[in-house]
Amino acid sequence: MVHAPSRPPAGAPPVRINLYSDTQTRPTAAMKDAMMRAEVGDEQYGDDPTVHALCDRMAALMGKEAAVFLPSGTMCNVIAIRTHCRHGDEVLAHETSHILESEGGTHASLSGVQIHPLQGERGMFTEEALRAAIRHRSRYAPPQRLLEVEQTANIGGGAVWPQARLDAVVGVAREQGWATHMDGARLMNAVVAAGIPAAEMVAGFDSVWLDFTKGLGAPLGAVLAGSAEFIDKAWHWKQRLGGSMRQAGICAAACLYALDHNIDRLAEDHANAQAFARGLRQIPGMVVEEPDTNLVFFDPSATGITPDALVRALRLQGVQMSGLGGRLRACFHLDVTAVMVEESLGLIRDAVARG
Amino acid sequence: MVHAPSRPPAGAPPVRINLYSDTQTRPTAAMKDAMMRAEVGDEQYGDDPTVHALCDRMAALMGKEAAVFLPSGTMCNVIAIRTHCRHGDEVLAHETSHILESEGGTHASLSGVQIHPLQGERGMFTEEALRAAIRHRSRYAPPQRLLEVEQTANIGGGAVWPQARLDAVVGVAREQGWATHMDGARLMNAVVAAGIPAAEMVAGFDSVWLDFTKGLGAPLGAVLAGSAEFIDKAWHWKQRLGGSMRQAGICAAACLYALDHNIDRLAEDHANAQAFARGLRQIPGMVVEEPDTNLVFFDPSATGITPDALVRALRLQGVQMSGLGGRLRACFHLDVTAVMVEESLGLIRDAVARG
Amino acid sequence: MVHAPSRPPAGAPPVRINLYSDTQTRPTAAMKDAMMRAEVGDEQYGDDPTVHALCDRMAALMGKEAAVFLPSGTMCNVIAIRTHCRHGDEVLAHETSHILESEGGTHASLSGVQIHPLQGERGMFTEEALRAAIRHRSRYAPPQRLLEVEQTANIGGGAVWPQARLDAVVGVAREQGWATHMDGARLMNAVVAAGIPAAEMVAGFDSVWLDFTKGLGAPLGAVLAGSAEFIDKAWHWKQRLGGSMRQAGICAAACLYALDHNIDRLAEDHANAQAFARGLRQIPGMVVEEPDTNLVFFDPSATGITPDALVRALRLQGVQMSGLGGRLRACFHLDVTAVMVEESLGLIRDAVARG
Amino acid sequence: MVHAPSRPPAGAPPVRINLYSDTQTRPTAAMKDAMMRAEVGDEQYGDDPTVHALCDRMAALMGKEAAVFLPSGTMCNVIAIRTHCRHGDEVLAHETSHILESEGGTHASLSGVQIHPLQGERGMFTEEALRAAIRHRSRYAPPQRLLEVEQTANIGGGAVWPQARLDAVVGVAREQGWATHMDGARLMNAVVAAGIPAAEMVAGFDSVWLDFTKGLGAPLGAVLAGSAEFIDKAWHWKQRLGGSMRQAGICAAACLYALDHNIDRLAEDHANAQAFARGLRQIPGMVVEEPDTNLVFFDPSATGITPDALVRALRLQGVQMSGLGGRLRACFHLDVTAVMVEESLGLIRDAVARG
Repeated sequence: MVHAPSRPPAGAPPVRINLYSDTQTRPTAAMKDAMMRAEVGDEQYGDDPTVHALCDRMAALMGKEAAVFLPSGTMCNVIAIRTHCRHGDEVLAHETSHILESEGGTHASLSGVQIHPLQGERGMFTEEALRAAIRHRSRYAPPQRLLEVEQTANIGGGAVWPQARLDAVVGVAREQGWATHMDGARLMNAVVAAGIPAAEMVAGFDSVWLDFTKGLGAPLGAVLAGSAEFIDKAWHWKQRLGGSMRQAGICAAACLYALDHNIDRLAEDHANAQAFARGLRQIPGMVVEEPDTNLVFFDPSATGITPDALVRALRLQGVQMSGLGGRLRACFHLDVTAVMVEESLGLIRDAVARG
Repeated sequence: MVHAPSRPPAGAPPVRINLYSDTQTRPTAAMKDAMMRAEVGDEQYGDDPTVHALCDRMAALMGKEAAVFLPSGTMCNVIAIRTHCRHGDEVLAHETSHILESEGGTHASLSGVQIHPLQGERGMFTEEALRAAIRHRSRYAPPQRLLEVEQTANIGGGAVWPQARLDAVVGVAREQGWATHMDGARLMNAVVAAGIPAAEMVAGFDSVWLDFTKGLGAPLGAVLAGSAEFIDKAWHWKQRLGGSMRQAGICAAACLYALDHNIDRLAEDHANAQAFARGLRQIPGMVVEEPDTNLVFFDPSATGITPDALVRALRLQGVQMSGLGGRLRACFHLDVTAVMVEESLGLIRDAVARG
Repeated sequence: MVHAPSRPPAGAPPVRINLYSDTQTRPTAAMKDAMMRAEVGDEQYGDDPTVHALCDRMAALMGKEAAVFLPSGTMCNVIAIRTHCRHGDEVLAHETSHILESEGGTHASLSGVQIHPLQGERGMFTEEALRAAIRHRSRYAPPQRLLEVEQTANIGGGAVWPQARLDAVVGVAREQGWATHMDGARLMNAVVAAGIPAAEMVAGFDSVWLDFTKGLGAPLGAVLAGSAEFIDKAWHWKQRLGGSMRQAGICAAACLYALDHNIDRLAEDHANAQAFARGLRQIPGMVVEEPDTNLVFFDPSATGITPDALVRALRLQGVQMSGLGGRLRACFHLDVTAVMVEESLGLIRDAVARG
Repeated sequence: MVHAPSRPPAGAPPVRINLYSDTQTRPTAAMKDAMMRAEVGDEQYGDDPTVHALCDRMAALMGKEAAVFLPSGTMCNVIAIRTHCRHGDEVLAHETSHILESEGGTHASLSGVQIHPLQGERGMFTEEALRAAIRHRSRYAPPQRLLEVEQTANIGGGAVWPQARLDAVVGVAREQGWATHMDGARLMNAVVAAGIPAAEMVAGFDSVWLDFTKGLGAPLGAVLAGSAEFIDKAWHWKQRLGGSMRQAGICAAACLYALDHNIDRLAEDHANAQAFARGLRQIPGMVVEEPDTNLVFFDPSATGITPDALVRALRLQGVQMSGLGGRLRACFHLDVTAVMVEESLGLIRDAVARG
């Protein structure tokens, strides 16, 4: 649903302030230095010590037995669903979830599953909504096999699931015999925002993954964690999908660096998001969603400028932002400073003033 | 969604009045006689003259170039979707459609497609709802490839799509370059109720099928129609799915008999449904949906008896009916007479009176 | 691999003697009578007593716990493989097996399995050939999950697996933890020829099916047998593939009739095949494979007439036969009498003499 | 088929001479330096200039319109087959091909295709063998859609297809309307050995890929080339499989470095392979296959030492080699010097002498 940046308008300068996505962070010199010093081996044969170290760290962080390194978060979702489900099964997930809206129909295609879209505010659903979707078991209904939750909920505005609600929906899954999977693309943002340790937050999930290319700032890679048996099966799909690499320790080193240096600082991104939201709210007519983490969704329509026009106006000033069907999204990450927040707000005020 | 009949309560007599489903009609002596006299051949090799005659009749009736005989309506849906789509595509259909709710997740499993559930009253959606579901084309979104419509809409109460609305949604599909498929399980009920010739009603659809085992009264079989090229491709999937049979002319003969004798009489089923609905409405508190065709959905809760209790009470009197999540469904077909309608109403009144 | 009959040559009379395939038998008056008298119900809801009777008979005959009625033998193979395997698994089968050569690539397509082709004479392989195909378990090799055997082996000349060899290959499967499946399209021919009860012959197989449309003479239908758990899972795929029917008891009645009347008489077909083979061998240059059951494969090339020319010459005399890549196949069944055998031999001798 | 290295025997020293696989090369300091200096962007959004530069270079080198960067060669095969074929199609490839033997059954699983195994010496098949596998088109046979060739043929001993034979099999594909795909994991070895420019060698192929992690020495990545339309479709599958990355230019920079520095030097690996083969042949009883490129397959059994014992003995001396079912494989690459060749030969002579 986050679409490719539209071609920049004619005469647009280079992007100076990138609020488009936290996927667009560049590796820092220190991170690159860690990459270069990494001890490597043939990851596909289980011989890369840096990849091993990363998987061990990730398993410990998530409180799971094992973990596997993969080239992307989408592949984590593909492999987790493929491993938990059989063709013909049904997965329950929010109707705005990434697996349903932004992965090209891959799960029907590669895993043969139907995703039942649950409704609910801010990308989250309630225990009641989940219970209402339980199917009577028969030959006519797809077997329900997996509950999927996105933490934070991207299209939901970067919302953090209240832990009690997370535990409640996991409770339904347990009761029904479903497996549970967390798309933790921005899980560490939730961990930092909620002040709950990751292992505690995801204790009810059979599998969970973390994307290292978003706020954590690594150039590529995601790690999927779960039981030893689950990860062993996942490896078979890693191989089949072409996710096995060779001297991948170079990339894993960037992820290890991120675990050491880039987690606590997510709080700065959240503070920047709060400041940005506060600034926006001072513009009459601006509708701003309360940010839980590093994403701010807002709608300028009532100020007299359309979302599209605002995106264009900002881009001409070197500020990039994304539009998602009427709403705009500003994303805060380690390449965005407090000064840039203020500058962006100023440019928005100017654009609105000019109409 | 129509679940298997619950085990009859202890002491229940045989079913005398079957309002459960029009799939449960028994072939009449005259129909069986036609079956026995059928000229047959090896259908799989294209050598069964009675199957050929049926396919020719069906193609002409639907205004399509060709048709193929299949063991069931579900296989018609499987093959149509498989032929129109590629793995990873998206199909647009109503959220209560049979392909989404009652075919065991088969389309994700066998064709690798995601079905986007559209909302709308009575199992139908509007042009606007359809337009709102159009996706921006990108690598993140599944390619939208097929519009599916159910005529009549079963869970929608046997509703008949107004022709203008049908034409409007087909217009959107044409504009978007989507193929169009009609699940015509009860299409002839719509044709009879609307007084519009079948070929005219389905002119905008690339494929359409008819179930001969519902109101038409045949023991097995459905026929899928479309262009010659489409049917040629469909034959490859008929073979792969195991839908190719041998001396199938025996069964096709029952379908030909049904085309000759059992279409016009669907009007009687509709009249019975109307009479039943009128009778129900005279019971204070009974909530009754207006029947377009042969299905009457109603909710007795406000009369003081629960849906489940009413189903049980009727079954103990030899009347079978189905419950679908709070609503009850009575289905009228060639084994249900006007006298049975009155008798059923009387038994319902009694049950409600007893509470 | 048995291709559709080529269009008959110009001026060809109707087929009088059909040696093309035992799938082309016509139901007899007595069989049709049994069909008409069948008690029926809604098979899809488990309410058809005649289908139940057939499944019970079949389960008992095969010594299995349960059975399910399906529209074709191909669907039996599809469902068995789908139920035993997961996507990415490997099935081991003979390189000429029906599942590999004649089902349109369906098992890769619908079940996501790779079929490893084993070599061996007459459509059968040895324990040694099977052992040589065992894969070292790793992430690079597809997991081997299922051994499939065809009894009789069609392209193998209707060969009957020696019981000791069958037991030996099953032994390898057990040792490796593979499931075992028998394509028993013509299993009863093997049972009659070998004089071994079916249940004993198939004791080592987790699933087995019988085609009722071949030598048994029914118009459509096959029955798949296995454990109760296996059949319960198979039912989910029956539903998803569109193999669930309605008043299917009419067709099941023909199968029950076949079990009562058409098994012992398969010995006559075998005797006719023997007589035909003996007659052919008296023609100088004719290469004739020894028939185990009701199929005779032969090659007339060395007599001076090409296989294609012989097929054409016979067809012009009302005799139909099939060619499979250089070999001809004559198939004996309940529509072929001893007199027809002699007449066919005479016509072959004439054709060869004319060259 | 190249299995994971067995656990080293107790007391084994670190590996000093790695003849196990050219996938195990470590990036050099110069290559890493190029990686660090790479200009990067969000590859998934088409914004990484270094990835663009690599794709442009690769397209030009192969004489194709476009190319796409992927995390592995297996993913190149998955995407190419997925893009060329539809579920139910058949691919023709050598029976020892990587897609059939070493990718975990992925192509049946993810693309629903059956792979027809062709026989032939040294991993290559003849035009005649290919013609013999052409199927009569019918509903019973899977549609044949794609010819796949592996250049060099790994299990074939690193054999280089004679260009005339390559052109001949492509000619058959063209005549049959099949697409053509080359698994060019070690294509540049063939190019260097044959002295034929890559674009000329692969002119008949609709798609071709190169692995940068083998003799070219990059840590990860492969590039798939083809027509602009093919690559556009491939991108949809890259997204769906999770092969889209972020600042992948860091890795692409290593591949660009390899194109600049590591191609011509493959001739040294070939010379080392020749020298190794010559040395082996001087050991009485040693059976050595003539190397075309950088792989030497040999069988020491007749010298009095088993393959397994020789692998173990060498490993205890710090030399790693792989066993593939009775044959041993020594692989030469940029981490193996001429001195190491001589040392390895000496150790083999010693091991054989000790028996």
